[in-house]
Amino acid sequence: MHGLMQDWPLVCSRIIDYAGRQFPAREVVDRSIEGPIRRTNYGQIRIRALKVAQGLAREGFKPGDRIGTLAWNSSRHLEAWYGIMGMGGVYHTLNPRLFPDQIAWIMNHAEDAALFADITFMPIVEKVAPLVKSLRKVIVLTDAAHMPETKLDNVVSYEEWLGGLDGDYTWYDSAEADASGMCYTSGTTGDPKGVVYSHRSNVLHALIAAQVDALGLGSREVVLPVVPMFHANAWSIAHSAPMVGSKLVMPGARMDGEAIYELLDTEKVTLSAAVPTVWLMLLQYLEETGKKLPHLRKVVIGGSACPRSMTQKFRDNYDVDVIHAWGMTEMSPLGSLGSLKPQMADLTGDALLDLKEKQGYAPFGVEMKITDDDNRELTWDGKTFGRLKVRGPAVAKAYYGGAGTDQFDDEGWFDTGDVAHIDADGYMQITDRAKDVIKSGGEWISTIDLENLAVGHPDVAEAAVIGVVHPKWDERPLLVIVRKPGREPSKEELLAYMEGKVAKWWMPDDVVFVEEIPHTATGKIQKITLREQFKDYRFPTA
Amino acid sequence: MHGLMQDWPLVCSRIIDYAGRQFPAREVVDRSIEGPIRRTNYGQIRIRALKVAQGLAREGFKPGDRIGTLAWNSSRHLEAWYGIMGMGGVYHTLNPRLFPDQIAWIMNHAEDAALFADITFMPIVEKVAPLVKSLRKVIVLTDAAHMPETKLDNVVSYEEWLGGLDGDYTWYDSAEADASGMCYTSGTTGDPKGVVYSHRSNVLHALIAAQVDALGLGSREVVLPVVPMFHANAWSIAHSAPMVGSKLVMPGARMDGEAIYELLDTEKVTLSAAVPTVWLMLLQYLEETGKKLPHLRKVVIGGSACPRSMTQKFRDNYDVDVIHAWGMTEMSPLGSLGSLKPQMADLTGDALLDLKEKQGYAPFGVEMKITDDDNRELTWDGKTFGRLKVRGPAVAKAYYGGAGTDQFDDEGWFDTGDVAHIDADGYMQITDRAKDVIKSGGEWISTIDLENLAVGHPDVAEAAVIGVVHPKWDERPLLVIVRKPGREPSKEELLAYMEGKVAKWWMPDDVVFVEEIPHTATGKIQKITLREQFKDYRFPTA
Repeated sequence: MHGLMQDWPLVCSRIIDYAGRQFPAREVVDRSIEGPIRRTNYGQIRIRALKVAQGLAREGFKPGDRIGTLAWNSSRHLEAWYGIMGMGGVYHTLNPRLFPDQIAWIMNHAEDAALFADITFMPIVEKVAPLVKSLRKVIVLTDAAHMPETKLDNVVSYEEWLGGLDGDYTWYDSAEADASGMCYTSGTTGDPKGVVYSHRSNVLHALIAAQVDALGLGSREVVLPVVPMFHANAWSIAHSAPMVGSKLVMPGARMDGEAIYELLDTEKVTLSAAVPTVWLMLLQYLEETGKKLPHLRKVVIGGSACPRSMTQKFRDNYDVDVIHAWGMTEMSPLGSLGSLKPQMADLTGDALLDLKEKQGYAPFGVEMKITDDDNRELTWDGKTFGRLKVRGPAVAKAYYGGAGTDQFDDEGWFDTGDVAHIDADGYMQITDRAKDVIKSGGEWISTIDLENLAVGHPDVAEAAVIGVVHPKWDERPLLVIVRKPGREPSKEELLAYMEGKVAKWWMPDDVVFVEEIPHTATGKIQKITLREQFKDYRFPTA
Repeated sequence: MHGLMQDWPLVCSRIIDYAGRQFPAREVVDRSIEGPIRRTNYGQIRIRALKVAQGLAREGFKPGDRIGTLAWNSSRHLEAWYGIMGMGGVYHTLNPRLFPDQIAWIMNHAEDAALFADITFMPIVEKVAPLVKSLRKVIVLTDAAHMPETKLDNVVSYEEWLGGLDGDYTWYDSAEADASGMCYTSGTTGDPKGVVYSHRSNVLHALIAAQVDALGLGSREVVLPVVPMFHANAWSIAHSAPMVGSKLVMPGARMDGEAIYELLDTEKVTLSAAVPTVWLMLLQYLEETGKKLPHLRKVVIGGSACPRSMTQKFRDNYDVDVIHAWGMTEMSPLGSLGSLKPQMADLTGDALLDLKEKQGYAPFGVEMKITDDDNRELTWDGKTFGRLKVRGPAVAKAYYGGAGTDQFDDEGWFDTGDVAHIDADGYMQITDRAKDVIKSGGEWISTIDLENLAVGHPDVAEAAVIGVVHPKWDERPLLVIVRKPGREPSKEELLAYMEGKVAKWWMPDDVVFVEEIPHTATGKIQKITLREQFKDYRFPTA
């Protein structure tokens, strides 16, 4: 027996239509790429998105076409997204921090037909555009006055282009399963893999993200997404803020402490989201200047683990609540958030900080489990760790073109590649990447836990742990140390420092000292290179 | 081009699975029908719902079968819902306030196969069951000790029935478009019409209802839904509370001021929802006893218009925020809620009360428009009123069996039968029922506005306004008055009182005095009877 409720597809044009109807005057403020702070609103953004859709359709771009964006968080970028989706196209966000040849590879793989780009990225566009055969047009997100010189063909300034359009356009009638957006994961191994969002997944993810215990977005909030739209949908804020009428404040190209502080202060931002690095810069700026954060209530921190001291500083010095979150490009991206469940509502001090170090619990719409290598589900005891697997309406079921099929199983579970434990209250904590975890005699050892412990030693600048083959135990941990300038801790001193703080059988079998540990472009330890470096190493105990 | 996100159907079993996994110990407290306050939790409710599903399946009930419930808000009722939906069945809530022959008509129309009923309703069940041919089993929501005597066959107590089941059951694999629930509208004219909810509409409606500016439900809230599950899904709370882990407090059969106060106080309820009548009883009780409401933050009031004085009392005397809401059985039911948009956040005094008299604005997922009789859309100016039409994923597209097709148009708009205006900020106010509004010389006159004005006169006990045929103006308003005991206001006095407070052409053409105005079972003025009563009336001016 069928229900008799309306067929009202979950498509993204409804989000901007809603914002334009119910919150037309609600502001969207950004630091423009050209310099000054700029103000617009949802009513204007909707009209300009209609023009974008009209313009793309008029130039022969078709529903399903991938349209790249290489842009900072700005109102123009937002207009481009809704315009692209509104004509049935697929916004394809490109990460400007990648090398130009990687960007070209990704654009060719997706067969991007057009590109919206910020003026700051024109040097990249100059290199990339000639390499992408499918690319027919570049729209530079600026006005005629600020248009950079270029030798490329088919380049136009956004404002000139919009000037020729009246917005008399009806959104394309997308189905909710149609693709709406695309983002490639920048894996440390192998080629990048394309995640393809649907209208349905974007809308559902926004409904989930806006919930009280997720981001907690309402119309009276002022939200500053520092997390980029070019990576994982700005944690849904580009969809969920217009859906509920929150004021949006966009940082543009400047994410230093002073610039972020200025927006937080002048726009009275109540809620923000960013990776730890950004908050580190802000906290430094605040300490140097003695400034405070009277308006800010909550910051959502993810992308990499939020240090305990950061949570504590925000709370103790600025009365700001930190919500530690975890997610992935493949999850749209929100997977878990560290809001307090009722049984934790009264926690304070170290107990609260202990909880806040975990990445939080899954909202409705995200299923989570941890398994061993044989896919047997493991218990939620806060200690036992295993491969973290997830399911949900905003979780990928495949990559574009069929890559990475081994990450998806028959029951729809996506293997995140992370290793985690989950406690009895449902709070998850990432303990390692699956490819880094050390398997010693059938048991798993977390390299991240060992690294965090080792860097606590006052003479250690940086620490990395890798597994090295061992004849008896399969693998054993090797601790790689960069010493602080002028310090000379011995192997024995370091091991003595760690002893008693981890299980005996977790203790590294050896310690080696190096000048430098290799890093990825985003600052993570490049363990694959490190393992390559130590491929001929043998333990003295072996 | 299709998106590549998971096929994760929006089905209701996922709600109770989520609550059972993430909030197993979160309490569900009710005033049991047998008397004492009873405590359980989502973990237990999930297990018992699995038993209900297992029991129904074992006795041969099939997916798609309609299973009636005739019950107060209680944890057992909640278990029954999730059990019924979990085996693929359709919970069909029956309103015990209807006459037994109406209940039997509705059950026969839906062909209910089984019935879950509270002990209080056994006298009704005794009358109704023999009239419903499709009915094969009655499960009385109590234990063996409290089981009433009955001559009916195939009757069992819920606890005995559950006692024979182990809950080792896998939820039926419903599609999201499958029916999940049913509720008949008790129209004042014609036969009741069946609304058929789907799994998808229930889940989406709960995601929408829980949003910050809708009900604003989070895990740390304690929610008391006085609004019955037997009518319009308890305003989604039976779905949205477990979805986010709110503690649930259920009033059972007692909704008097003292009983509600006791639950609000002992369970530290933060949020409640009910019709104005319930709040009137509570406010009287509080005034008599001098008690306060230290825990309650917010009450959602709908079902009929919330009087201004009620909003004021809650705010001034108890520091409780009133959210005026509007909805319909056909809308799952939430249609609009009077949360404050940012531009109103600082309103106080009369300006705030003026706004709070309106029924609020539509959340994302509800589209609204007002039209004239020719379906031309009318402007949102807070004055022009017209037929209120709605669209959305939790709005009906048809009634069960095809009744009432004239309420649905080709573009999917559902004609609510209400007349309303919407202001420039999107706030809607119901001004009349479409069948009651008076059409005078092509212009519309709101009977509700005139009635509200007339009852403000100190000598008036009750007022009703109906349209009576007029040779020149088609229709003109007739004011029907019940005088307060011992008072004798004249026609001239009443009209003088109203003059200047409404447009001149809205003024009633005549006033008549009666002993009594007819009412429906739910206390609304029965205008159809009143019009019948005055069908031979002619205006002196005609």
